[in-house]
Amino acid sequence: LVPAPWAGKDLWVKPESLQPIGSFKLRGGYYAIASLPPEHRAAGVIAHSSGNHAQAVAYAARAFGVPCVVVMPEVALPAKVAATEALGAKVVLVPPAQRAEVMADLARREGYAVIPPFDHPDVIAGQGTVGLEIAEDLSTVDVVLVPVGGGGLASGVASAVKALRPEAKVFGVEPALAGDARESLAAGRLVVWPTEQTYRTVADGLRTALSELTLAHLSARLDGIVTVSEEEILSTVGRLAREAHLVVEPSGAVCVAGYLHRRDELPPGRTVAVISGGNIDPALLPALASL
Amino acid sequence: LVPAPWAGKDLWVKPESLQPIGSFKLRGGYYAIASLPPEHRAAGVIAHSSGNHAQAVAYAARAFGVPCVVVMPEVALPAKVAATEALGAKVVLVPPAQRAEVMADLARREGYAVIPPFDHPDVIAGQGTVGLEIAEDLSTVDVVLVPVGGGGLASGVASAVKALRPEAKVFGVEPALAGDARESLAAGRLVVWPTEQTYRTVADGLRTALSELTLAHLSARLDGIVTVSEEEILSTVGRLAREAHLVVEPSGAVCVAGYLHRRDELPPGRTVAVISGGNIDPALLPALASL
Repeated sequence: LVPAPWAGKDLWVKPESLQPIGSFKLRGGYYAIASLPPEHRAAGVIAHSSGNHAQAVAYAARAFGVPCVVVMPEVALPAKVAATEALGAKVVLVPPAQRAEVMADLARREGYAVIPPFDHPDVIAGQGTVGLEIAEDLSTVDVVLVPVGGGGLASGVASAVKALRPEAKVFGVEPALAGDARESLAAGRLVVWPTEQTYRTVADGLRTALSELTLAHLSARLDGIVTVSEEEILSTVGRLAREAHLVVEPSGAVCVAGYLHRRDELPPGRTVAVISGGNIDPALLPALASL
Repeated sequence: LVPAPWAGKDLWVKPESLQPIGSFKLRGGYYAIASLPPEHRAAGVIAHSSGNHAQAVAYAARAFGVPCVVVMPEVALPAKVAATEALGAKVVLVPPAQRAEVMADLARREGYAVIPPFDHPDVIAGQGTVGLEIAEDLSTVDVVLVPVGGGGLASGVASAVKALRPEAKVFGVEPALAGDARESLAAGRLVVWPTEQTYRTVADGLRTALSELTLAHLSARLDGIVTVSEEEILSTVGRLAREAHLVVEPSGAVCVAGYLHRRDELPPGRTVAVISGGNIDPALLPALASL
């Protein structure tokens, strides 16, 4: 945990942007691969992703010395394809609509184990180690803020924090433009927003909808959820660079934005904001001085 | 310690840029104030600085609840004056040439304790806690790289690392344009370069010359010193932002630059590069994408 006195004297951040691949995704990918039966794992693993999950699975597969295939959309940024290949994975480029099908075919034919990005108990357990570390580092924590996209990180963190420190409150944070998790929790059932809507937010890691599994976790364990605006997200990316000396991607900045701009909706006390990742679009870097 | 697999699989960085004031200087300032006799400390402390030392002393004085005066040159950046005042210090602006004299006068008249930026055993001991933490976090460390300006950080780190792990090698790193420490060590006596020369380097925290005290420490405990070019320093600032997701000031980037570009002059093995600070000139931020 890193104290953030520039934002408030009771705020700490948990900078997952400093993980080797620049995001928390390593934890879930690694734990899911570690949990496979050894003979199944030896046959190799497969995932589909255009983002941080691709590198997470590639990194973890290399650590276990097993083959790895990542199915990516043809439109993926060449830098992301290269980063995934540099970690030893074989990348298969396909039209976006065929990703799931190609992955399932390859998995069946080659015996690869599928590593999902969030909708699996092992992945949720792996992401939950973020919460274990928070409770260990700051045993008196009062409030934990965690980003909500597909809900894997939030499910794991809420479960871990509530297990170790039941009196702590755990709040989710998401962009108002992808506020489907808040709506789902309020409705008590899975509400999925159309892609055209969620793709308006700059926080590209938080456009995904919850699954039944993550909704069940969050319904049972979150104390609430707040949303932040696009302007609040981007100005927080700038402040994190200038005042915390951290390069953070927009999805990773939502919790600090929530702390700065939604104090009236959050409980008081010692607060930890999870920064989920640092893989910012390079085109945004020149704006860090002025955001 | 944060692993830096993008630079090499045996490299870790020690990111002092994540300290509350954005640099390691907090350690020495805090320890020097903590070591004062309580009745002397209660009268208040004074320092002169236009940079990170000003905020370090102000932050530590506030933590102890004692008065703090910082003498700064009239030409200091308004943002640095404001940051020091925001930490509760009284700032006295004077013509640059009168800084030391005004500080000494005020100290004598008001009974303030002078907190020097590096030339004092307590300050060196405080900076040395960086080395204690490195040896504790990576007990098998083979090589530690530390920036050399006035030499307080390097003296403390070399002393601490050699005490806890005598077999580790400690190397200093400095800009070639302010290579006075390497020349001093080679000559076995204090060599001071003219200000016009050292002020050419972008690494503004490393323009200072050693003192007799720090030269004695470094002569006894450093295994060597390497220098890096301006281009190597700036490109490393860019890579640290893009690949390590850390905003680092040029002075803080010299050790990683040394690891990347002076491998032939450094011993092999598990290496820790100290990143001394993150308070980059905001004018450099837009260049992070292209450096």
